[in-house]
Amino acid sequence: VTSSRPFGERLREQVLGRESQIVLGLDPDPAELWPAALDAAPPAGTAAERAGAAVAAHCRMLIDAAGPACALIKPQLACFERLGTPGWAALAQTIAHARDRGLMVLADGKRGDVPVTARAYAQALFGSTPSPFGAVPGLGADAATVNPLLGEDALAPFLEAARAAGAGVFVLVRTSNPGAADVEDLPLERGSPLWERLAGLVDGLGDGDPPDVGAVVGATAPEHLLRMRERMPRAVFLLPGIGAQGGQVTALAPAFTPGRHAGLVSASRSIAGAHRAAGGDPAAAARAEAERLRALAWGLG
Amino acid sequence: VTSSRPFGERLREQVLGRESQIVLGLDPDPAELWPAALDAAPPAGTAAERAGAAVAAHCRMLIDAAGPACALIKPQLACFERLGTPGWAALAQTIAHARDRGLMVLADGKRGDVPVTARAYAQALFGSTPSPFGAVPGLGADAATVNPLLGEDALAPFLEAARAAGAGVFVLVRTSNPGAADVEDLPLERGSPLWERLAGLVDGLGDGDPPDVGAVVGATAPEHLLRMRERMPRAVFLLPGIGAQGGQVTALAPAFTPGRHAGLVSASRSIAGAHRAAGGDPAAAARAEAERLRALAWGLG
Repeated sequence: VTSSRPFGERLREQVLGRESQIVLGLDPDPAELWPAALDAAPPAGTAAERAGAAVAAHCRMLIDAAGPACALIKPQLACFERLGTPGWAALAQTIAHARDRGLMVLADGKRGDVPVTARAYAQALFGSTPSPFGAVPGLGADAATVNPLLGEDALAPFLEAARAAGAGVFVLVRTSNPGAADVEDLPLERGSPLWERLAGLVDGLGDGDPPDVGAVVGATAPEHLLRMRERMPRAVFLLPGIGAQGGQVTALAPAFTPGRHAGLVSASRSIAGAHRAAGGDPAAAARAEAERLRALAWGLG
Repeated sequence: VTSSRPFGERLREQVLGRESQIVLGLDPDPAELWPAALDAAPPAGTAAERAGAAVAAHCRMLIDAAGPACALIKPQLACFERLGTPGWAALAQTIAHARDRGLMVLADGKRGDVPVTARAYAQALFGSTPSPFGAVPGLGADAATVNPLLGEDALAPFLEAARAAGAGVFVLVRTSNPGAADVEDLPLERGSPLWERLAGLVDGLGDGDPPDVGAVVGATAPEHLLRMRERMPRAVFLLPGIGAQGGQVTALAPAFTPGRHAGLVSASRSIAGAHRAAGGDPAAAARAEAERLRALAWGLG
């Protein structure tokens, strides 16, 4: 989507309007799709084509079921890429369907590259690519995750393209996996960890209120959240790691200090797979789990 | 490609057999395609479909022209992704064509994510994805670039999938953009820069001779190359930044100490756009430039 209004303003309105800070993570695994989605696949075609169609149907059903309790979807690009061309088609269909349902779209690809290549990724995510045959539209995401290892000049093209489209970027600051300690927690010269430096980058780059540069902050390390809020007083935090990765939503309160919009709580497998624990219809279980998380997070703000 | 032979062995044989350390970078920009490639696009269709077909034709022509002087191709995933579904189809066609021509394939996507997602990216790059409709094959790359910010557990799925396929990974250690200094050069507690820690990761993770874990090392910082070789005595270096980014091939000699296979010299715009400086037929100019770089690098080993 291309909007003349800044991302932060649009995001705040979305969160307050839908009374939800929940981000519906879409990490479709073809081996764990809802049965109704498998039925929607064509009876013939290559494995990629059939799996791609089933993944698109699964995401559509999941959005219809859990979407009303959520503010954004967060498609995990890896899960679509691995299905090749039909996977990329399923991604485009999923994004279009979410938009129809009034959800914002956060493309989770954690891209990062030297500036000339970052510009190409930004065209794919936020903008379009000029060609002799006319402009080729990209995914039209409202936001995307990016990797800051390559420094500020490598982030700049993402930021420029996002701003031109009224979109935002979320920079990896401290991820939710155990190995994040290996690099992100490395102490710098004065003893503060690398992630604090990344947090400084986020704080310095953002524009608007809330700013259009947010931070990916693993909810599995809640002891960091207060320090992160100190370093990034205004940034929107994207908090993955709820549910399947072990994070607890009640530990997230410091994220919401600047306002409810300032902490986006992401969950994917715990919603899509809620019926495995709760039993019953996958769609009803997903809706109930999304609604449970929504109420829990909303109650903290 | 899936091979029972380790990546290092296959790479060395490839470099010695073709007498080339040159990596043909494929960063197709629809606005700068060869005229003959534009003619190959279908006269009707969406901008994405026509641009995708023209990009596929451009890459095929470039491989046919410059490939004989090269050992690998390095498709820049961003440049295909930005064309959506037709772009992903062009990527698959380009990889298949390169393989027909005897070239190895290094997928340049600089992916990196938490372990469960890294596994999905690894399926896309090296393996296949199980589905109720059968296994969905990935790109079948011989190697891929990965981003180490998320730590060792996030690199492990790439490495496992690569090993199972006889493929390798190249870890970002010190990139060629000016902003690389912002994060990669940050001094750690004892004064050594972050990139030296990343180099230690590379050195520790590799297996085989040469190891199946290489390093992406910007050729624009040749003063680092000796220190990098000290930290990673055996690793294969992928050296981007030749030509358009300003690197000089003669400054690379320290990369080749363990053998000619230990330094892969990447060039893209300087080959595909050689006719802009040299004049004449794009294919002939590309071949001449690739051959010039090949002879220059080979002479250093």
